[in-house]
Amino acid sequence: MRTIIICLSIGLLLGLGAVAVHAQEPFSPITIPVDVDLTKVELGKKLFFDPRLSKSGFISCNSCHNLSMGGTDNLPVSIGHGWNQGPINAPTVLNSSFNLAQFWDGRASDLQVQAGGPIANPGEMASSHTLAIDVLESIPGYQSEFETAFGSPGIDIERVTAAIAEFERTLVTPNSRFDQWLGGNESALTHQEQDGYALFKAMGCTSCHRGPALGGEAFMKFGIVAPYETDNEAHGRISVTGQANDLNVFKVPTLRNIELTYPYFHDGGVKTLSEAVQIMSRIQLGRVLSDPEVDNIVAFLLTLTGDQPSFALPILPPSTAHTPSPEPFN
Amino acid sequence: MRTIIICLSIGLLLGLGAVAVHAQEPFSPITIPVDVDLTKVELGKKLFFDPRLSKSGFISCNSCHNLSMGGTDNLPVSIGHGWNQGPINAPTVLNSSFNLAQFWDGRASDLQVQAGGPIANPGEMASSHTLAIDVLESIPGYQSEFETAFGSPGIDIERVTAAIAEFERTLVTPNSRFDQWLGGNESALTHQEQDGYALFKAMGCTSCHRGPALGGEAFMKFGIVAPYETDNEAHGRISVTGQANDLNVFKVPTLRNIELTYPYFHDGGVKTLSEAVQIMSRIQLGRVLSDPEVDNIVAFLLTLTGDQPSFALPILPPSTAHTPSPEPFN
Repeated sequence: MRTIIICLSIGLLLGLGAVAVHAQEPFSPITIPVDVDLTKVELGKKLFFDPRLSKSGFISCNSCHNLSMGGTDNLPVSIGHGWNQGPINAPTVLNSSFNLAQFWDGRASDLQVQAGGPIANPGEMASSHTLAIDVLESIPGYQSEFETAFGSPGIDIERVTAAIAEFERTLVTPNSRFDQWLGGNESALTHQEQDGYALFKAMGCTSCHRGPALGGEAFMKFGIVAPYETDNEAHGRISVTGQANDLNVFKVPTLRNIELTYPYFHDGGVKTLSEAVQIMSRIQLGRVLSDPEVDNIVAFLLTLTGDQPSFALPILPPSTAHTPSPEPFN
Repeated sequence: MRTIIICLSIGLLLGLGAVAVHAQEPFSPITIPVDVDLTKVELGKKLFFDPRLSKSGFISCNSCHNLSMGGTDNLPVSIGHGWNQGPINAPTVLNSSFNLAQFWDGRASDLQVQAGGPIANPGEMASSHTLAIDVLESIPGYQSEFETAFGSPGIDIERVTAAIAEFERTLVTPNSRFDQWLGGNESALTHQEQDGYALFKAMGCTSCHRGPALGGEAFMKFGIVAPYETDNEAHGRISVTGQANDLNVFKVPTLRNIELTYPYFHDGGVKTLSEAVQIMSRIQLGRVLSDPEVDNIVAFLLTLTGDQPSFALPILPPSTAHTPSPEPFN
């Protein structure tokens, strides 16, 4: 009995010690939201996967924020209605609830506002809020599910985007090896990965990539020391504020699941994490890294892949004779 | 005790009676295959959802055979690479293992042969078997999964299509109300639905829509009594056999889940089940149905919706620096 107590005490001390050390770190593990409305989540999941929110009946939220692929499309820029070449790289929807605002330029204040954008964007889903609501209202399965989720009959764009946003709040990725290490599991990171993390902090990457998502908490100039060379015509916050000093100021992207969210930067112009690290170091911090330094930081970044959202593929309620037909080709 | 035995006996007699009656029916319930290779199924599921099998990195098998929507895209004709307007309606992948051959014209002998077609079709996924294999071979997650599934290292198109086909074999939809009724549950169908079923048989629909999938077992002329009017340029088996009498001879589509697989016919030209039933009756059987007759048959057809395949959305292994980049726009 005494042996057990001693063992437990030692374990507790070791555990507390580890937690105490890592509690000093500037990051905290990803946590799962506990206050979500599960009825809205299930409805929002269906809407997220429903291509009938697009004019073509072919493009859903999941087309460009593919939850099989890190919540992105893994393309430099996205494909929209009529095979339109989009202006910018699709940011991951994973952990997007941690963002101070949505879109690269932060033009949407939150997930609900964001969700309404692509539906009505002619180069993305190319529908309209009116048409999307007409489609959903024609489908009995949705009528009843909206009534259950919101407590009264009726479907409008506020309810649609609220449900999608509630689903998106669940798209967090806990339990990465980095988070295990933050939680006190010393062996969760190799020495190389810990070296990479130390360098990541020492260089000052954390001044922008901060918060539980290692990003998403601030707008920052991209190209502080040297400009980022790109043909991309998006220039960030300036399109929202009109302020000259917001030229090339973007929302800092999350580094969570960066292994899965290639290609990198707002133009999707960089294919590999090594190249992205080299560029960031040079143009943001004015420092040229050695190959081993790059390797160490990349090794650290690869520890940020968390448990991907796991759920059954939703089955969508069928359309009816009254559902407006999709119009992919006109 | 005696009461219980009597009740059980009556129940048994009723049960046997019901089974005996419905064993005379020309249909048998959908059954779940028991001999699938689950390792290949899991691999095939990933491949089915992986848009990297397309040149664009945007189109997967699931894009047009969407398992959230009855294994179809619910479009008259499908959207392919570069927003190409496809030549024909995407047949459902659900219960497709019951088909005597694949595609509307039966040009693929089985699911494995079928799976290789769209990958390399310039108007669909627009990749090539060589490119698709190069992509998969560059991904360590796939390398190991293919080795586990097939017992030796290496990825080739035969293995890719074999895995996809094995997954597709699991895409059956048991437990429809019709199947419950076939199994002896008398109350599974309403009187109207049973009337519709009786008329369906009496009219001779079952001469083509036969077998467990109510279709898929034969090639038949579409437009026996009167021609089907369409601008669609697909004319069925003639393109495979070159035989003049195969003009407008198509594989009989399954009626399982017909509630979900709209719009109807090879051209996707008909939006509602009522209209489809009227047309089939007129041009195949030379009979004009009354509105109540149409309603009854439609009521029966709606009982053919089975349990949809339920599984967790697959998470795909990430690409690497060596993975050929998708090329959506050139």
